[in-house]
Amino acid sequence: MADDENEKLAVLAVNARFYRAFNEGDLIAMERIWAANAPVACLHPGEALLCGRSAVFHRWQEILAYRPGFTLRCDSPTAQLVGTAAIVYCYEGSNEHPAHLAATNVFVREGSDWRMVHHQAGPLADPIPRRRASELN
Amino acid sequence: MADDENEKLAVLAVNARFYRAFNEGDLIAMERIWAANAPVACLHPGEALLCGRSAVFHRWQEILAYRPGFTLRCDSPTAQLVGTAAIVYCYEGSNEHPAHLAATNVFVREGSDWRMVHHQAGPLADPIPRRRASELN
Repeated sequence: MADDENEKLAVLAVNARFYRAFNEGDLIAMERIWAANAPVACLHPGEALLCGRSAVFHRWQEILAYRPGFTLRCDSPTAQLVGTAAIVYCYEGSNEHPAHLAATNVFVREGSDWRMVHHQAGPLADPIPRRRASELN
Repeated sequence: MADDENEKLAVLAVNARFYRAFNEGDLIAMERIWAANAPVACLHPGEALLCGRSAVFHRWQEILAYRPGFTLRCDSPTAQLVGTAAIVYCYEGSNEHPAHLAATNVFVREGSDWRMVHHQAGPLADPIPRRRASELN
C-alpha cells in the first residue's frame, strides 16, 4: 500500500511536469514526458484523435509554438493505479478562472519513469471554481 | 504479437458490449462491464468527475433509466495495450448523424475478463461523418 502511494506520487509529479511543459512552451520537456515505446494518443478539446508520436508531437509543436498568454492550472489531480498503468484525473483552468475542462491523463512505466501515453481534455458544462474542485476529491 | 492482437480483439468486444448496454438501457450488463475491484471513474460529456463504483453507478442508473430515443454508435474503435491495461479510442454518434463525441475507454483485466475502469467522452468541434471516421485509423 505504501508502495502504491509512492507510485501515485511519482505519477502526479510527472503529471505536474506535463502542465509545466505546456505553460513553458517546452517541446523538449513535453517529448520526455510522453512514452517513447508504448503507443501514444491525444484528444485535445474539440479535436479529432491523434494516434502515434508523429501525429501527437506535430500537434504539440503547433500548440506550444503559440504562447497563449495564460497559465493552465491543473486542479485536484487524482491518481489511480490500474494494472501496470496509471490514470490521473484532473480539472484544467486558465489563470484564476474556474476550471473549464476535465482531463484524463494515462501513464505507463518505461524503465524507471512514468511516461504519458494519452491525454484527453473536454469542456465542463459548469466551470468549477478552484476551491470547489479541491473539495470534490 | 498474435497474443496482443487477440487481447485487443477481446478489449474491443467488451467495448462493443459497453455501447450495447447503453443502447439497451441495461444497468446489469453495464455493471458487469465495469471493474469490480479496480478503482473506477467516469467523465460524461460536460459533467464533473465521478469517482468510485457508487458514484459511477448512481449516474448510470439515472442515464439508463432515461431511454433517449437514439442509438449511440461507436465509430472507429482503436485498441491499444498499455502495460497490463488497455485503452480504446473511438468516436460516438447518434443514429446516422456524424459522430459528435470523442471517447477514451480504459480497461484492465480482472480474472479472465477485461473490465472498464474509466470512460470519458467529450464533444468534437467538427462532427465526423461515419465514413470519414473509419478512414482516420
